[in-house]
Amino acid sequence: MRGVLLDNATAVDHLVDVTHELPRGDVRVAAFWLAQLLPWFPPAVHLAVVDPGVGSARGAVVVRAGDHAIVAPDNGLALPAARAIVREDHRIPARDADPDIALGSDSEAPVEVFAYEYSSPASNTFHGRDVFAPAAAAVHEVGVGAIETLEEVQAPEAYVDVRFAAPEIDDAGLTARILAIDDFGNAITNVPGGRLPDREKIRVGGETVPLVTFYGQTPTGQRLVTVGSHNNAELAVHDGRGDEAFDVSVGDTVRLAW
Amino acid sequence: MRGVLLDNATAVDHLVDVTHELPRGDVRVAAFWLAQLLPWFPPAVHLAVVDPGVGSARGAVVVRAGDHAIVAPDNGLALPAARAIVREDHRIPARDADPDIALGSDSEAPVEVFAYEYSSPASNTFHGRDVFAPAAAAVHEVGVGAIETLEEVQAPEAYVDVRFAAPEIDDAGLTARILAIDDFGNAITNVPGGRLPDREKIRVGGETVPLVTFYGQTPTGQRLVTVGSHNNAELAVHDGRGDEAFDVSVGDTVRLAW
Amino acid sequence: MRGVLLDNATAVDHLVDVTHELPRGDVRVAAFWLAQLLPWFPPAVHLAVVDPGVGSARGAVVVRAGDHAIVAPDNGLALPAARAIVREDHRIPARDADPDIALGSDSEAPVEVFAYEYSSPASNTFHGRDVFAPAAAAVHEVGVGAIETLEEVQAPEAYVDVRFAAPEIDDAGLTARILAIDDFGNAITNVPGGRLPDREKIRVGGETVPLVTFYGQTPTGQRLVTVGSHNNAELAVHDGRGDEAFDVSVGDTVRLAW
Repeated sequence: MRGVLLDNATAVDHLVDVTHELPRGDVRVAAFWLAQLLPWFPPAVHLAVVDPGVGSARGAVVVRAGDHAIVAPDNGLALPAARAIVREDHRIPARDADPDIALGSDSEAPVEVFAYEYSSPASNTFHGRDVFAPAAAAVHEVGVGAIETLEEVQAPEAYVDVRFAAPEIDDAGLTARILAIDDFGNAITNVPGGRLPDREKIRVGGETVPLVTFYGQTPTGQRLVTVGSHNNAELAVHDGRGDEAFDVSVGDTVRLAW
Repeated sequence: MRGVLLDNATAVDHLVDVTHELPRGDVRVAAFWLAQLLPWFPPAVHLAVVDPGVGSARGAVVVRAGDHAIVAPDNGLALPAARAIVREDHRIPARDADPDIALGSDSEAPVEVFAYEYSSPASNTFHGRDVFAPAAAAVHEVGVGAIETLEEVQAPEAYVDVRFAAPEIDDAGLTARILAIDDFGNAITNVPGGRLPDREKIRVGGETVPLVTFYGQTPTGQRLVTVGSHNNAELAVHDGRGDEAFDVSVGDTVRLAW
Repeated sequence: MRGVLLDNATAVDHLVDVTHELPRGDVRVAAFWLAQLLPWFPPAVHLAVVDPGVGSARGAVVVRAGDHAIVAPDNGLALPAARAIVREDHRIPARDADPDIALGSDSEAPVEVFAYEYSSPASNTFHGRDVFAPAAAAVHEVGVGAIETLEEVQAPEAYVDVRFAAPEIDDAGLTARILAIDDFGNAITNVPGGRLPDREKIRVGGETVPLVTFYGQTPTGQRLVTVGSHNNAELAVHDGRGDEAFDVSVGDTVRLAW
C-alpha cells in the first residue's frame, strides 16, 4: 500500500503509518480507534483499511470531514472518525467536556460521504493495495471534487455506518459497554468521563474500587477506574492489565454504580 | 539503520519502513515477500537485511533492476525481488497473467549484480547498521555506477541466488509447495492462479474444499482455496487461519487435484 | 503523538519511528536502548516516552546533547542517550574502544538538562500526546533557547538520572549484570567487549562456552558469548535465544570467568 501511494501521488510530504495494530477484521473496534487517532492530525488524506468483506460486492467510500478525507471500505469504518474530526471540542479534557456530545451521542456532524466506484481490481483479496491505495493517491493528487468516479451519497441508509450507543443511566448508576481494549490492557467503556460521580470509589459489578485521575495514585496491581486519554471511563490496573483483572472483553456489559 | 541512512544520505524524500515482520533468519521466505512488495514501489534504493550469516565471510551485493537498486547480503535475498521488478506484468491480475512467467518460472530477467566490498565494520553482529545501511546511503547519494567498491558480477555462480520451483503438474492435478504463511495464516503455494481449474471445488490432500475468488464467498470457518494478491493459490480459512486448518508449514508439499 | 507533532511543527523533514518495541514501563531498559540508538542519528529532536509515572507530579525535561535535543519525562530515560551522543567514540568498534569510557563508566558528559513546565494537559493518562509531543514540536520549531517554559537545571540531584554500573572485576573474572534482552533473545551484559580475555572459551556460571566474534562461528543451537553491536558482551545462542538457554532476565547477575 505504501508503494502504491508513492507510485501514484507525487507531492506527498509525509507518509505516516498511524497503526497496524488494530484487531484483524473487527471494523467496530477499528472505527473506535480511528475516531481517537485521526482528529489529532493536521488535514490529510487518511487511508483506512479493515476489510473483512474484501472481494465481495461491498463498496468503497471517500468521507470528507472538513479539510480531511478518509478513504475506506463502505463498512462504517470511517464514519466515527469523520464525525470526531469535525467536532470542534474533541481535544477538550474530560473535566471540561459536555458529556452529551461525547462519543456515543446522537449528534449529527456535517460529514460528506462519497461512493467510489471501482472495477476489476488486480486481486480479490487485497483491495487495500488494489482499490483503496490508488483511490487515496487520487484524492491526494486532485482532491475529492475532481474525481469523476466519486458521487455524493446523501441518504444515510445508502452507506454503512458504525454508531456507539451511550450508556444507560439510571438512579443508581449506569450500564456501560466495553468498546475496546488498549495495548496496555485498559478496558475502555462508552461512559464519558463527565458522567462519573465526584467520588473516590466506584462499584464495578460487585466490587468497589478506587476512582482515580491517574494510574499511579494506587498501589501496583490495584484494580481501578479512571478517565483515559479518550475522555471515557476505563477499567484498569496500575502496572497491570484491566481486561484480565476485571475479566471483560470487547462488547461486554459492565455495571458501574455509586 | 534509519539513523545511519539519514546521517549519510542528504536528499532522502521518504524513508519508508516496508516491513519488520519477516520471519527471523529465513532468507527464502523473506525473498518471497520482497518479490511481492518491492515491485509496487516507485524507483528507489531498497535496503533489505535478513542476515543469518552476519559476521562470516558472506559478501554484500547491490542488485540493479531497472531504476531500482537493492542492497542486501549476498545470500539470494534480493534476486527474486529484482527479477519481479523488471518483469513488466507483475501487476496483472491472476486471471490475465501467463502462468508460464509467474513466480517459479525459469525466465531470466536482466538484473545486474554488483559485489560490494567492505572491511572492518564496527560490529560483527549488526551489518545492517554497519555495512548495508552505509552502502544503501552511498548508492542513494551517487548511484551504483559511481561507487568504486562496486564490481559487476557476471557469472551466476559467483553470487548466491534463491529460486522458487514451479509446481509439478500431471494428468490428475499438481504437487504444490508452501512458500510462505502470511499474517492472517493464509498458506501461500507456488501454484500460479492460472494453473487452477475452472471448477467450484478442488481436492487438497484427501479433502475437497471450495475453490473461490474471495474469502467471504464461504461461511465463516470454512477451509478454502483461493488466489491471493500475489497471484498464487493459497490455502485459507474464512475468518480463520489456513495454516492451522490445513496443518501446513513453509516448505511442505501439498497435493492439489480435481 | 505523530499527529500532534505534524500539527504543531511546520518544517519537519522526516518523522521517523525509532521504536515502539520497548518493554512497557521499564525506564531503565528503555534508557539502555535509547543510548544505543540515538547516537547513530543526525542531529534531531528526539521524542522519548516511557512513562510509568504519567499523571503524577513527575516533571518533564528537555536534554540538550550537542545539536540533538531529547524531550522526555523526568525519570532518567533521556540521560544515558544524551551522554552517548556527546561521547565522540560511540561508533568505534569494541576491539578499538577504551573499556574505561564504555557504557557504565563514570565519565561525566556535558549535557544540559532543562525542566519543562506544563499545566493542565488534556489527559492524565497520555502525556506522550498531551505534554511531550507538543514540547517536542516547540523545540523543533524554535529551539531550546527560545522556549520560555524551559529552565536549565544545574544540580544533578534536581533531575532523575539512570546509570549503568560497571561490572565488578577481580582476579578470576568479573561479575556482570544483564542490562537488556534484545528481540532475538540475546542477553546483553554491562561488560565492555574490551574487558573480555583473548581466549576461545569463557565460563558463564558453571558452564564453559565458546567466546566468538560472531554467531555463525558455532553450530546451530550452541550457547556462546560474543560482543554485540553495542560493544558489550552478550550471552547468545546461534539461531536461538540466549535468555532462555542461559536462563537469565534483565537485572540478573552473571559470573564470567576464565
